[in-house]
Amino acid sequence: MAEYTQILLDVADGVATLTLNRPNKMNAYTRTMMTEIIDAFDRTDADDSVRAVIVTGAGDRAFCAGADLTPEDGARPFSDPTEVPLNDVKVRDGGGYCTLRIFNSKKPVIGAINGAAVGIGATMQLPMDFRLASTAARFGFVFARRGIVPEAASSWFLPRLVGMSQALEWCMTGRVFGAEEALAGGLVRSLHAPDDLLPAAHALAREIADNTSAVSVAMTRAMLWRNAAEPHPMHAHRVDSRAIYQLSRGADAKEGVASFLEKRAPAYPGRVSSDMPSFYPWWEEPGWE
Amino acid sequence: MAEYTQILLDVADGVATLTLNRPNKMNAYTRTMMTEIIDAFDRTDADDSVRAVIVTGAGDRAFCAGADLTPEDGARPFSDPTEVPLNDVKVRDGGGYCTLRIFNSKKPVIGAINGAAVGIGATMQLPMDFRLASTAARFGFVFARRGIVPEAASSWFLPRLVGMSQALEWCMTGRVFGAEEALAGGLVRSLHAPDDLLPAAHALAREIADNTSAVSVAMTRAMLWRNAAEPHPMHAHRVDSRAIYQLSRGADAKEGVASFLEKRAPAYPGRVSSDMPSFYPWWEEPGWE
Amino acid sequence: MAEYTQILLDVADGVATLTLNRPNKMNAYTRTMMTEIIDAFDRTDADDSVRAVIVTGAGDRAFCAGADLTPEDGARPFSDPTEVPLNDVKVRDGGGYCTLRIFNSKKPVIGAINGAAVGIGATMQLPMDFRLASTAARFGFVFARRGIVPEAASSWFLPRLVGMSQALEWCMTGRVFGAEEALAGGLVRSLHAPDDLLPAAHALAREIADNTSAVSVAMTRAMLWRNAAEPHPMHAHRVDSRAIYQLSRGADAKEGVASFLEKRAPAYPGRVSSDMPSFYPWWEEPGWE
Repeated sequence: MAEYTQILLDVADGVATLTLNRPNKMNAYTRTMMTEIIDAFDRTDADDSVRAVIVTGAGDRAFCAGADLTPEDGARPFSDPTEVPLNDVKVRDGGGYCTLRIFNSKKPVIGAINGAAVGIGATMQLPMDFRLASTAARFGFVFARRGIVPEAASSWFLPRLVGMSQALEWCMTGRVFGAEEALAGGLVRSLHAPDDLLPAAHALAREIADNTSAVSVAMTRAMLWRNAAEPHPMHAHRVDSRAIYQLSRGADAKEGVASFLEKRAPAYPGRVSSDMPSFYPWWEEPGWE
Repeated sequence: MAEYTQILLDVADGVATLTLNRPNKMNAYTRTMMTEIIDAFDRTDADDSVRAVIVTGAGDRAFCAGADLTPEDGARPFSDPTEVPLNDVKVRDGGGYCTLRIFNSKKPVIGAINGAAVGIGATMQLPMDFRLASTAARFGFVFARRGIVPEAASSWFLPRLVGMSQALEWCMTGRVFGAEEALAGGLVRSLHAPDDLLPAAHALAREIADNTSAVSVAMTRAMLWRNAAEPHPMHAHRVDSRAIYQLSRGADAKEGVASFLEKRAPAYPGRVSSDMPSFYPWWEEPGWE
Repeated sequence: MAEYTQILLDVADGVATLTLNRPNKMNAYTRTMMTEIIDAFDRTDADDSVRAVIVTGAGDRAFCAGADLTPEDGARPFSDPTEVPLNDVKVRDGGGYCTLRIFNSKKPVIGAINGAAVGIGATMQLPMDFRLASTAARFGFVFARRGIVPEAASSWFLPRLVGMSQALEWCMTGRVFGAEEALAGGLVRSLHAPDDLLPAAHALAREIADNTSAVSVAMTRAMLWRNAAEPHPMHAHRVDSRAIYQLSRGADAKEGVASFLEKRAPAYPGRVSSDMPSFYPWWEEPGWE
């Protein structure tokens, strides 16, 4: 386990658990936490034994109560008095570093939202694949109530998850809302009693780990987010044709068919570190400028 | 109050109410009404005292029953016998002028759908941020039942609001449907008894006006609609980074944090007319040609 | 009726019914079936008497249980030992040929999902406009459980229909799920007892055929799928302005207004084969390369 100061990262039985770990500060987000989260996702991506990542908060009050606004811990924009040109890398939002990193995760990401999730605590969840919430959780895209704007690329992510109407309402009112409203609005997939939350997240991680090919899941994750944003289904057809062509000749496809026909649990040999299709990644990441 | 002939525009207590006002014609849409709606949104955008715009219909029968097809009032395409080239500005759909203007509103727009909303009466609502409906409202994307097609850029807006399946069903059958189906399908956010409709719209307007920064809301509105349509979250990250960078140094952010810490209602000094970020608007509007 | 070997195509009373017809193989998908489906859609598009296409499966067990993996019938990638460059047309996924053809259908397509719909049996439905399911149906985007990836351009289609969260969950777990979960997740619009499924599909086809202009529906279908994928509503405005301009001068618009004012059923004279707007198609199909 790495030497982190504001998060915990545990890997057990194929599942990594990343815990935001400043419980006495309601797990408020800092530059240090940002750096540690990004480092943790670099590790989970590189570790072939990790099949899924669960993200949760320490303590029973908060998942993450937002950016830490106190000077000693604070995110840079609130504390840095120097003005730089708008294309300077120093302008980049610290929340966006985190969500763009999670967006590129090769492993499925499961948010286990255990308490208050406000500001970056809400937007950080959006590039995750699954959001499970405690019945005690509450959420707030409160930026318009703080004189700023939705950050962490949430204006791209949120409408994809909940539709444009719901995204506009939550972001334009800035209201804090409870777990039931989050479920009804499609932000979270399921609610759980506080003690049942992590077990439910683990059960979902196991459903993936026990039944699927890691290479297939890494490809599927990138394909859905990226191909759906293209203007024509031909883009998806180009990618999936090539992926099917290569993967159907591979060891995971053989094991997939064999285990299905033999009605047994599969044991896929493919590794994300070495067995992705030859054309992966098929995109160029856009630069900041 | 302006000298309009087919709409009313009232501003009171930070909320503008735009009433389609041809009750004896079921508020049917004409070129005159189009021009007046566009002018009204120019006024509400320019008036810093306006924090939200409510759009409703006069009388208890209709929000807007569609385009007025009678020659004396009619929209041009139905009455103009001259053919012009397809890139001529005269070809432009009169419904689209209206929805593209509402799309660019700097203030939140709340539809209070008080009765029949058919044809342009239905599509006109789609660029609004919130749609509240009377239980007596009914809706129809009836174009395929009139030998024409969905207009007012509704083929862009409607799938964003209700998903592609629901959009296809309403537009391909052309059926007229009631308020309950509109709620179940996600077209409207809430239903209200007829007498409760305008109070509910005002309560929502007040929730925004009393709690949020006008500059934040204007930015949020543009960011969600525009950034979500881009192919990669980096586009959103570029915009939100710059907005956070500038706004977090501004007076509204100071007031947002101070009022939050002091547990009092905020009084944001920022004005949409003068205090938007320096890079706003960050896009170029596409031309008609 | 054409001489097909793996499908049936019947046209009666303005409605075509395409039946996947390998009931003793659970209607598993082959290259032959693919070719026949594509040919059938060429026929229904060319036949002005066809106002809607229903797609269902023969027998009471399956809609389509996936790609036939046995060598004699199998889809090429699983049986062809030769490797070709990734831009070779032989690499193209056989499921994508089918879904891209259905995507371009000029007639509304109604899936009547009568039983198991797994793999290509699930993804084949996504470019259809309506999915009605038997209560006995079950669905599976099982690709990650077979060591491959979602195909048939489903990474483009599925998030448009059910939102990104639901699409990710079904594709990353690969689970097989029942009709109730498909309804709750928005994959199908309605559930029906097995004996009521085809009558319900026919009733929907009749609702369209009896009330709408064929030209309007063909245009509406192309406009919603294509315009919504563009980055700005101006794209939709350009198309709908030109369509309204031309169609409002046409015979279907006259009949639409006349039948409405006379409160009688319409009889639209327009034909898809000859009366589409002059600028249709307004797009260029992207190539495979």
